[in-house]
This record gives sequence, C-alpha cells and structure tokens, in this order.
Amino acid sequence: MLNGEKKIKRPLRWAMIGGGRTSQVGYKHRSGALRDNTAFQLVAGAFDIDAQRGLAFGTNLGVAADRCYPDYKIMFAAEAGRTDGIEVVSIATPNGTHYEICKAALEAGLHVICEKPLFFQVEQVQEIKRLSEQKKKIVGVTYGFSGYQMLRQARHMIESGDLGDIRMVNLRYTHGFSSTEDAEKYSDAQKWRVNPQIAGPTFVIGDLSTHTYYMSQLILPKLKIKSVLCDRQSFIPSRAPLEDNAYILMHYDNGAVGSAWISSVDAGHMGSQTIRITGSKASIEFTDINPTQLLYEVQGKPNQTLYRGMDYLDETALADERLGALHVEGLSDAWANIYLKFAVAIEAKNEGREDFLEDFVFPDINAGLEGVRWITNCVRSSEQGSVWVDFK
Amino acid sequence: MLNGEKKIKRPLRWAMIGGGRTSQVGYKHRSGALRDNTAFQLVAGAFDIDAQRGLAFGTNLGVAADRCYPDYKIMFAAEAGRTDGIEVVSIATPNGTHYEICKAALEAGLHVICEKPLFFQVEQVQEIKRLSEQKKKIVGVTYGFSGYQMLRQARHMIESGDLGDIRMVNLRYTHGFSSTEDAEKYSDAQKWRVNPQIAGPTFVIGDLSTHTYYMSQLILPKLKIKSVLCDRQSFIPSRAPLEDNAYILMHYDNGAVGSAWISSVDAGHMGSQTIRITGSKASIEFTDINPTQLLYEVQGKPNQTLYRGMDYLDETALADERLGALHVEGLSDAWANIYLKFAVAIEAKNEGREDFLEDFVFPDINAGLEGVRWITNCVRSSEQGSVWVDFK
Amino acid sequence: MLNGEKKIKRPLRWAMIGGGRTSQVGYKHRSGALRDNTAFQLVAGAFDIDAQRGLAFGTNLGVAADRCYPDYKIMFAAEAGRTDGIEVVSIATPNGTHYEICKAALEAGLHVICEKPLFFQVEQVQEIKRLSEQKKKIVGVTYGFSGYQMLRQARHMIESGDLGDIRMVNLRYTHGFSSTEDAEKYSDAQKWRVNPQIAGPTFVIGDLSTHTYYMSQLILPKLKIKSVLCDRQSFIPSRAPLEDNAYILMHYDNGAVGSAWISSVDAGHMGSQTIRITGSKASIEFTDINPTQLLYEVQGKPNQTLYRGMDYLDETALADERLGALHVEGLSDAWANIYLKFAVAIEAKNEGREDFLEDFVFPDINAGLEGVRWITNCVRSSEQGSVWVDFK
Amino acid sequence: MLNGEKKIKRPLRWAMIGGGRTSQVGYKHRSGALRDNTAFQLVAGAFDIDAQRGLAFGTNLGVAADRCYPDYKIMFAAEAGRTDGIEVVSIATPNGTHYEICKAALEAGLHVICEKPLFFQVEQVQEIKRLSEQKKKIVGVTYGFSGYQMLRQARHMIESGDLGDIRMVNLRYTHGFSSTEDAEKYSDAQKWRVNPQIAGPTFVIGDLSTHTYYMSQLILPKLKIKSVLCDRQSFIPSRAPLEDNAYILMHYDNGAVGSAWISSVDAGHMGSQTIRITGSKASIEFTDINPTQLLYEVQGKPNQTLYRGMDYLDETALADERLGALHVEGLSDAWANIYLKFAVAIEAKNEGREDFLEDFVFPDINAGLEGVRWITNCVRSSEQGSVWVDFK
Repeated sequence: MLNGEKKIKRPLRWAMIGGGRTSQVGYKHRSGALRDNTAFQLVAGAFDIDAQRGLAFGTNLGVAADRCYPDYKIMFAAEAGRTDGIEVVSIATPNGTHYEICKAALEAGLHVICEKPLFFQVEQVQEIKRLSEQKKKIVGVTYGFSGYQMLRQARHMIESGDLGDIRMVNLRYTHGFSSTEDAEKYSDAQKWRVNPQIAGPTFVIGDLSTHTYYMSQLILPKLKIKSVLCDRQSFIPSRAPLEDNAYILMHYDNGAVGSAWISSVDAGHMGSQTIRITGSKASIEFTDINPTQLLYEVQGKPNQTLYRGMDYLDETALADERLGALHVEGLSDAWANIYLKFAVAIEAKNEGREDFLEDFVFPDINAGLEGVRWITNCVRSSEQGSVWVDFK
Repeated sequence: MLNGEKKIKRPLRWAMIGGGRTSQVGYKHRSGALRDNTAFQLVAGAFDIDAQRGLAFGTNLGVAADRCYPDYKIMFAAEAGRTDGIEVVSIATPNGTHYEICKAALEAGLHVICEKPLFFQVEQVQEIKRLSEQKKKIVGVTYGFSGYQMLRQARHMIESGDLGDIRMVNLRYTHGFSSTEDAEKYSDAQKWRVNPQIAGPTFVIGDLSTHTYYMSQLILPKLKIKSVLCDRQSFIPSRAPLEDNAYILMHYDNGAVGSAWISSVDAGHMGSQTIRITGSKASIEFTDINPTQLLYEVQGKPNQTLYRGMDYLDETALADERLGALHVEGLSDAWANIYLKFAVAIEAKNEGREDFLEDFVFPDINAGLEGVRWITNCVRSSEQGSVWVDFK
Repeated sequence: MLNGEKKIKRPLRWAMIGGGRTSQVGYKHRSGALRDNTAFQLVAGAFDIDAQRGLAFGTNLGVAADRCYPDYKIMFAAEAGRTDGIEVVSIATPNGTHYEICKAALEAGLHVICEKPLFFQVEQVQEIKRLSEQKKKIVGVTYGFSGYQMLRQARHMIESGDLGDIRMVNLRYTHGFSSTEDAEKYSDAQKWRVNPQIAGPTFVIGDLSTHTYYMSQLILPKLKIKSVLCDRQSFIPSRAPLEDNAYILMHYDNGAVGSAWISSVDAGHMGSQTIRITGSKASIEFTDINPTQLLYEVQGKPNQTLYRGMDYLDETALADERLGALHVEGLSDAWANIYLKFAVAIEAKNEGREDFLEDFVFPDINAGLEGVRWITNCVRSSEQGSVWVDFK
Repeated sequence: MLNGEKKIKRPLRWAMIGGGRTSQVGYKHRSGALRDNTAFQLVAGAFDIDAQRGLAFGTNLGVAADRCYPDYKIMFAAEAGRTDGIEVVSIATPNGTHYEICKAALEAGLHVICEKPLFFQVEQVQEIKRLSEQKKKIVGVTYGFSGYQMLRQARHMIESGDLGDIRMVNLRYTHGFSSTEDAEKYSDAQKWRVNPQIAGPTFVIGDLSTHTYYMSQLILPKLKIKSVLCDRQSFIPSRAPLEDNAYILMHYDNGAVGSAWISSVDAGHMGSQTIRITGSKASIEFTDINPTQLLYEVQGKPNQTLYRGMDYLDETALADERLGALHVEGLSDAWANIYLKFAVAIEAKNEGREDFLEDFVFPDINAGLEGVRWITNCVRSSEQGSVWVDFK
C-alpha cells in the first residue's frame, strides 16, 4: 500500500512543456507527478506558448521565475548549464509537436514523458525508440487511465486462466461533448484536435481510443491484432477527414475477435470507457467511470463484483493501493500510479538495471508505438473503404 | 390502461402447432394469448411430434382430447369440418418447418401467428405475403420483446425529434448460455438451432438478433439500411458454418451508422438486449432486462430515466399499461401486448377494415420479411469475406 | 418449471368481489388467478358497488350476465343454489369491508382470498381463523409481491446458514405518489385509503408495509419481533391521524434488530420495496423493482448477484420458474405464483390433506394475522409517543 | 476550476502529529494538504509514538531528520524557536488525545486541523473554541468526504427550493469490516476504536456517522435537530458498551424527520455512505462510492442524474472542480478540497478578514462541536433505554 514514502532514492528534477493555465490535461500531469513529493519535483517549465502567461502560471505553481522559460529549446539549453538542471520532462503540447520535442529532449539527455498519441507515424516512433536506447533514457506515455488498479487485477485474472481462452475484446470510449460544432467554436483544445495539421490523421481514434486500446493491451499482453477494419464518420462535416465517430473490428492472431466504438458525438453518454473481455469460461468488464469495481461474470455462476482495496485481489492490484477499500480512488490517483512507475523506471534506467525494466509494466515507448500503429492501421482501412487490412 | 376487458367482440378460436411440454417458448405464446381470456381461447393443438405426449400435454392444458391432434395437417382437416373450428393458429416449431405450415394454414383459411425467424428465404416470405393478401388473412410474427411499452415511448420520442437527427444505432443481444458444446449436448432446443437444415443459414443472427433488429425498426420506422457488413464466428467449431458470435456494421440511407453485437458465447452476461439510439441532440437506451426503464440522455443536461406507467409518457406507451407504475411488467406482459394486437388486427381483417390496419403497428409479415432480409444480407456479407454488401 | 399444465385436478370456480373497472388491484387478481386457465375460472362476480357498471364490466370479462351480481350477499345466495356454483371468492374491496365479507363467505361455505391488510383488529382475524378451521376452508391473503422466486431463494439461503446468525433486518417500501393533497383529490382509491373509517388505523403502514413485513417473514420464518417502536407522520395534515410516512424500529427475540421506512411521500422514488437481511457472515438484498436479481454480499468476498431461472438456485426458487433466465418475470407472474399456491392449498384442504398443508408455504390467514399485529403494535407505539412497546 | 495555482500568498508551514506508517488516515491528510504544493508544505512531524519509526517515516517523506520529533510537546517547543517554525498542525492520533493536543497547539500559537470526532465532551469543544477565538486561530476538522463537490450542488439545490419543504433526512454509513472479532484482533487501528478510554463513548457513531451527519448539515444548514432516539447494539459482545451498529431517529425543528443507520457489521456492504433528502417536491440522493453523481428525483417527472463537472451545476459545485466531467474525482480530491479551504481560512484569519470567514463554508470547530453533540445526545438516548431525548 502506497502512503507517500519514497520509492526512489530522491525525487527527480522535473519540467513541463505545455500544460499551462488553459490546459485541462496539464493539471493531471502535475497531480500525478507531484502527488507525494517523493518522486518528482517541479523545478522548471515552458508552460505556455505565451511566455508572459507561462511565467505568471509557473510562478503561481511555485516554480522559480528564472526557470519559467519562453520555449522548450531555451529551457533545454539553460537547464543543461545548471548543476541542478532538469532530468526529465513531460510534454503536454498538441500532438503535432510531440515528435520534435521528444527528439530534442532525448538529445538534451533528458528522460521523456509524453502525451498520447505519441507521433503521427510509426517510423517516427521507431526512430525515437532507437534514440532513447542510444541515450539510455526512458520514454513514457501518459495513458493515465491505465493506472487504475482494477486493470492490473484484470491482467492477473486473465493470465491465471480465470476466463479460459480469450474470444472477444469489446472496447468503448464514447462521449457526446462534440455533438455540435460549438465544441470547437468555443474551445481551443477542441479546435486543434480537429485540425489534421496539429492533431494528425485522426480525431477520436487518436484522442480517445489510444487510451482504451492500451488498456486492452495492458490486460491482454499476449493478444496481437492480425487484421482490422475501421468505419469512421464525420458527423460534423467540417471535421472531415477527421472522424468524430468510428466503429472498428479486430481479428486477433489467436482467433479472438473484437470491436471498438469510439465517439465524441455519443450525445449524453457519461459512461466514458468500457472494456469487456470474454473468454470461454467467463467475462470481465471494467468501466472507467466506476474504477473501483471490476465485474467478473462466470457462465453459470452468480455474477461477481470485485472491489478495489480488498484482500482477495492480486498483489499487483494491491501494490498501487493508496486509500483503502470503500474509499474511492479517481483519475488523479491513477495518474499518480503511472507517474510513480515512470520515476521507478527512470531510476532503474539511470542505474542500468535493465533486468528489472524487462519485467516492469508501465506505458513505455512500446505502448506509444502500439498506439500509433493502431491509428495508422485504422486510417488505412478507412481510406480503402472500411475494409479489412492486415495490422502492420 | 388494459384491465382484461375485451378489446374485440369475442375471443378467437385458437390452436397451437408445437410449443409442447419440452418447449420453452410455447408457454410464452400461451401466456400471451390467454392472458385475459378475452382475445383468444385455446381450443385445439398439434403440440408435439410425439402424438401421445402431445395429447397428454394438451388435455393437461384443458384442451378437449379429440382436438389434440397428432399433426397440423390432420388438425387443419378436422377443424375445417367443425362449425366451431379454429380461426387462427400459432406456429412454434423449429425454423425449417415454418414455411410449409404457414402456407398450409393460410390455404386452410386460417390467420397465422408464427415464430421468428419466419423462413429461410426472402422469396418465401414474399410468396406467403401474397398468399395472405389473397386469403385476406393476417400473418403475425412473435417478436415478443417488441411488446414492451418503453419501445413505443422511444418511437414517439424519436418521431417527436427529441433526439435530433439520428446518427447511430447500436444493438446488442448477447448471452453466454452456449459458451461450451454442452449447450447442444444437453438441450434439444439448442441442438436444432445449430443444425442448418432445421435452423436455416444462421444461429444467433436468426435466433437472437432478429428480435433486436425488429425492435430497432419499431422505434425507427423511417430508417432503412443501405449496406451491411457481417463478421461472424463459430467459437464452437462443430457449429460451423452457423455462427455463435457476430459483429455487424450498418450504414443507413440517411447517413446514420450502426453496429450490432450478437452472441450466445458472451460468457456470464445476463443483460441480454440493449438498444441505444443516438441523435444530434440526445440518446435513448433500452435494456430488456430492465424493461420498466428508458434512459434519455440529452447532451449537456442531467441524464434522465423514464419509468413505465408514468403520466409523462406518450399515450402510445400508456395504451398497453396493465399494472401501473412501480409494478414491474415482464416478458409475459409484453407477449400479452403483442398477442392482443394480433387479435385486434385479425378482427379488423375479418371486418375488412384495411384503413385501420394501415396505421396499426404490430409485428406483421413485413416485420417477418425484414428479419429474413437481415439474415440473408448478413450471411451474404459473411460469405464474401465479411465485406460491405448492399442491403437487398 | 411451470408451463401452464394443471397442478390441481380441475380449475376452481371463482368469483370476485370488488376489483371492478376503476380498480387497479382487481386486474392483478385476475391476471394471477387466470394465468393458465388450469387453476381458476372466473364464473361470477360482484365487481362494483355500482351494479350497472359491474354488470357491464363482468360481461366484458366474459362472465355470464346472470352471474354478475349487484352485491356479495346476493351472489352468495344465488350461487349457493347452483350445482356449478362458486367455490372460492376473492375480496378486493376497501379494507373496512373485508371482515364482514370474509365472514359471510366462510359461512357460505366458500374458500376466501382477501386483500391486505386483512382486518382492523387482531381479534377479528382470530375469529375468522377459528371460523375457517371450523368450515375447513382456506383463507389466503394477496401479498402479491411474495410470489417472486428470489424471495424463496433468500429463504433457502438463510435457512442454509449462508448468512450466519441474523443480526439486522432492514425494510423499505417508499414512493412519492402521495406527496401532495392532489393524490386523494383526484383518485378514489387514494381517497378511502386516508379515511380511517374505511382504511383502518393506518395509511402507509397498512397499505404498503404489510407487504414488506410479510416478505421478511417469508424469508425469515424463525425470527419473531419482541418489541417495536413506530414514529409516524402526516405530512399532509388532512391525513391525520393516518400517516403518510413512518419509521419503525424492531427488536427480535434472537437479538437481531431492524428498521423499516414506509412512505408515500418519498418524492420521486421509483425503487419501491427493498429488503436487506444482514447476518454475521453475509447479507442479502432484494428490491422489487428488480425482482430478477438477489444481491448476496459475503464479507471479505466479491459481491454476488444471483439471477432468476439459473441452475444454481435452490429448487424452491426454481419451482415457480415460468419464462427462463434472462426473461424478466414481473408482478403479474408473482401474482400467478401465489394464486396457484392458493389453488393447490384449496384442493389439499378439500381433500383433507392437512399434513401437506402444514409444510406448504403461502400467504395464509396466519400471514394475514401477522400483518394486523404489525399494524396494531405500530399504532400502539405511535399513540404512546413513539416509544418501545412489547409486540403482542 | 482548480489547477494547482496558488490560492493563498504562500504555502503554510505544516506539521503532522500521528498519521505515521501504520496509519491509514495519515496519507489522506498528506494527499489533501500537499496536493498542489501551493497550500501547505510538510516541514515537521511527530508521526509516531515510536520515535525511531517516526524518524524513519518522516525522512522517507522528505522531512528533515531534525524536524522529525519524538512527540508533539517537543515539537511545539523546538519549532517555536525557529524563524521558519510550523504555523499549523494536523492531529491524526486516536480520539482520546485530541483534546490535550489541540489545546497545546493553540497555546503554542498554531492553527489546528484535527481528526473527528473532535473530543469526548461538548464542554471540551466549547473551551477549545473559546481558546481558538482568543488565540485568533482556526480549528478545522477533517470531515474529508465533505469535500465532494456534489454536496455543494445539493446544498445549492435545497437552498434554491428545488426540493420544496424538507420532510425527511435519511443517512447511512455502513460497512461490514468489523463483522467478527478478528477486526480488532488483527488491526491496531480497530483495537483502540473499540476501547472507550481511547475512542470515547461510541464506536461507529463517532467513527462513521459524524462524517455523514456533518455532510447532512453541510447541505441542510438551516435544519436543526430537536430530539433524537438512538438504538445501539454490540453484536460483538466484547465491544460493549461501544456499539458496532446503531439506528437513530431524528426530529427536526421544522417538522422534518430523519433516520440514520450506522454499522460496521453490515456484512458485505461496499456502498458506504448514502444521504437522501426528501422534500415536498423532490428528493436528492448522494452515495459516496459514486461521488461523481447526484440523483435528483422530482415527483411525477423522469428521474435525473447530475454529473460532476458539468456546466449545469451551480458555481459552488464547479468552484472545486479539478479534472473535468467524465474524469472521476475520488476521496483524495475531496480531502484536497477541504485542506485548501483550511489554508484559505487560515490566511484569512491571519489577515483578520473575519467578514470573509463569516460566510466561508468549511468544516470548522462548530462542525466539530456539532459532531460531539450528535454523539453525546445519541449516547444519552441509548443509555436511557433508546428513548427520545431533547437534542442539547
């Protein structure tokens, strides 16, 4: 059970790029990283493209004024000259900038934590992966929901054979906040998400489903997609070619099949993400609006609901427990879990403990790579007329 | 509000074919038809292929021994000779026999109520439709779930524009009772359902999804499928070519899209059918395990739950009310609703009130035709490699 | 599994008193009694205090005009003179008339099925009980909800020790349909319910909680109340002294304790009745808006949900199964279950099978007696200032 | 919307007493206080009665070794001698020590944040209240759940008259983790909670229901209890006279009534706290296992569910928003909300802004006083035989 005591020898000196005052996701990074003050310390930042606003914001967070930088290049240069310079940087900027900032950060000798979707092309990820190996640095991806403990429980149960052979994988991440054009009219964050120059080749597939897809990989590490079919729509025509709704079908190499429904025009839906895995004996279902629970449905038996924090859970689920059963942990706790894993991985990397890293499960660059592959293959299917394509 | 008083001038003389002691669905027919004793009277039957068992069963239901017949042909002949002979017959036999019995019944001058899926081929339905028109007889199809009042409410709300433009139709009918081969090993009812000679070209698509598909048509009468893609699996290999799981994608002619998940291997799932319709302003969702409720989710407003029997519902939903709000109506009530509609339709037909029938909504032969089209198009897509096919 | 086949040698000739066109509960009686036409036949009735309306109504149900009587006295006399006269009568009139009609029916040699709450005073029930024993007749009480199968499952689990020692009994039956005075202004059924001359000494305690209290006795046959405390309110002052809300605390003789919340002014609540029984090891919870489920919560284990119709249920729960798992049974099915038990009990009584009746569980006159005791003791506590009183 | 930016001019220098490695609640304090590093800085502590363990723990949290003190007296003395000494202290020790530590802290010129229940006697709270006024210091009480935003929404809706006149207040805080004696056998935290010398005159009434009671006061500030009746039990006899279960009935001065069920032997229940407030027009219901939602049930209308973070909420509910709608906030976020309010109140107190404090709603010493009154009156009723007593 986590209680704030240090898990690494000393907190890492951390900076953020983006995630400023107008960013919704920036605070999730800070809440995650700074949860216990024993994993990360926020010592610098290039928080905003508006340098003045970034300075005001950074100092309001307690960052020294002279370490609130107008942009990331200046920050990397300046911090490199300090004995107490930053060691790791989080990138919470629009998608289109991830690649160049990641590259620059690695080249500046920094560990990197980056927003999803990582980049636009698989080749870019492969290049950055090679660079990170060469630089002996971690690249983490902030699939924040993946920090929920019940996903570890799901992974354990599947690994243990509780479900039998896996047959179906059903994913859903839908909401209705983009049901009308007003969404982008009144929100800067939405505006760039429907601009392919900045967002990349997809809207909801990249923005929403990369989370859910990674969560499915986290709990089903052995399942590999063989082919995929993607049917996507732009119900708000001005968003085309970017989609605001998509249905995706999957064929896995073990014979399992799957479906995903991704939408930002699912008017009124407040349930967000659901993952249902069905095996020959039983199913499990996780819904992120209710992260404290995991449904476990064995055919022919009473349905079960497992609760976070209970002794009957696997040790991998209990390892990240903070508040105890009955007490709701939410998304900020999940982010804290993955940021703590980033810190542990960075320390291990710094100390050359590759063996440890081999078995240490967290959203690393391979997770980011898979997300980009998912997007790329979905787009290819869609562009060919929503047909089946091999998953490359 | 229904209270058992007669809705037609006198009860119709009714017989059943099949639906005997070992049938699960037979009792649903009887519960529906005989609910108030003012719509139908069970006066004859060919309940069982085992004539002795059929006799024992029929007399146990209160049918006169001499009107418990060994088969339907004998019954039609014998009853034709009586002044108090049967007027309408329900067919609850395995799928493969529906066509010939329907035809014989119409030719014997009887109204027909038949189990779904109606027949194997669209052409068969068209032939029977022509015959029924010629004979001036009703052919009803027992989409029993479609009797739930909240579906009428859904139809009304969509018609009224409460959802805005319809964008997505999501259908699900899944359970896990066929997760292993034991399902057919120990159940006769399951055995024929996986035999293409008797069940027709599909298992779950015909057995389960024709219900859900009809329910979607009931609430969305204007939406027409333009093209469909069906990906089906036989997780129990001995069931091939019949599927025990299928994902179906739909394109509608108004630009709406949809998906359906149909399964009898969704281990442990007890939720059965769910229909979610999403429009540009709001969504509605109905789950048949909770037929007393209808979710109504307007984007940007608190989510709403509508309850059966409440004054705020539309008169078409209240028309079939029996027990009053707070008091659960279940599937036997839903069957009673559709059987009462069959009776009303039959009387209207007998009296030549075609105008009335034009606007009277119940699962008639067109509904049966649509079900067969749904199956046929899904199979064609599947056989061509799970590709998009025009919905013919 | 029930499928409509006869459970008694021949259907009983049955009449109703009250329950006419304007009655909501009358239809529940008819739906229950006539479900399969093998237990009861409706052959006569005194359906309405307005004789003309009663005649129109009865004939509309299919009752012969000459057996639609203007009142119960005339009916008893006339039917006594027929060889095919009625054998059993159901009383669905306002509370204040139950006692005299019950008495007259027994004296006329009829079995009786009566609405709850039975009478106003314990002594009246004891007198009628003696009379029924003398006349060798059944008196059943229509605690209709008690027909839900999951209550039998609950009874079995408690008997089997699944819960350990019983510690707490929590009952709730609340709705908000009487939140304002309009309730009685616009509904005759409500009007008499708040008139102590007709309704007796309570409103919601008698009208609602006798159901829930009987359900608790059904599943906990060994638990006896030792003392009770009742705090009741009339939020609509014109209802005083009759209450529209009450809190009741119970002490049982085994050391268990309990509470009940009864209300018709619980604005907006649509959940109706909930029974939660807690033992030293586990709890069970049943909610009548969701009668297909039973929650089973073992301390330290995943919570379980049991579903109607599943093989893992006890045979006493499966005995009344009609539709099969996944298919919702509602209140009309529950009423059918208790009416079938009334028929079985009446046949056993007629045949002198007292041994069978000893162990046969159904809402009999003792159940009715307990309901009147519950009301009487609650009122006594309330009138003494909401203090603890011995449960007499 | 909160994003971590400072709400007070500079973070307060903060210490903890208790809440060490074996404490579950200690981490909730730290997570709350340190959430954004802009309200509090943990600079000292007397974390443990075992000084060595306290030192190891404190340094593991990042506290300087020389500011990890063996006990609170030494800490107050030492810190008073520093120019950067502590300004505010949180007390997370067993109940029996709260009074003397609070007093010492105030006398040392510190602001105080203390665990509930505050003290054993009303007079003690009144004395400490006078002392805090004299010292011009804040005393906050960590009713952590009260930080959930939907409670502010509930308060607003009631204030706005959405419910009409308030009629019923139903409170529940039950779990089953103390169902057997093992609870105290294997947990030190539980051991002292059933020891009246340390826990005070109650177990679950003090430990659990003071939370729920405060939450009810937060949303119903105008309602005052007039009289109360408490029926309490010790199902595990060794806990007597301390109760592990209690039913409480309340009469309010406006004519409203209420009930509370408090239990640590409600085997298997994972729902924790529920508050249901019923008015003449509508009810609201909040359950802390699902803090993202608020049920709003208007009689005669569809039931509504309000969600955290949505624009339709009141500004008082949105003021504490951190993550945005769809993203679950949990108990650590709620604690962060109340700790931030403590910081704001402390700064205001330091600056003499009493006007601001007059209207600033947070769990202050009056909230603590009410909790002790609640306990005291419940015990008095219970000791007199579970009778009605005036609420003094």
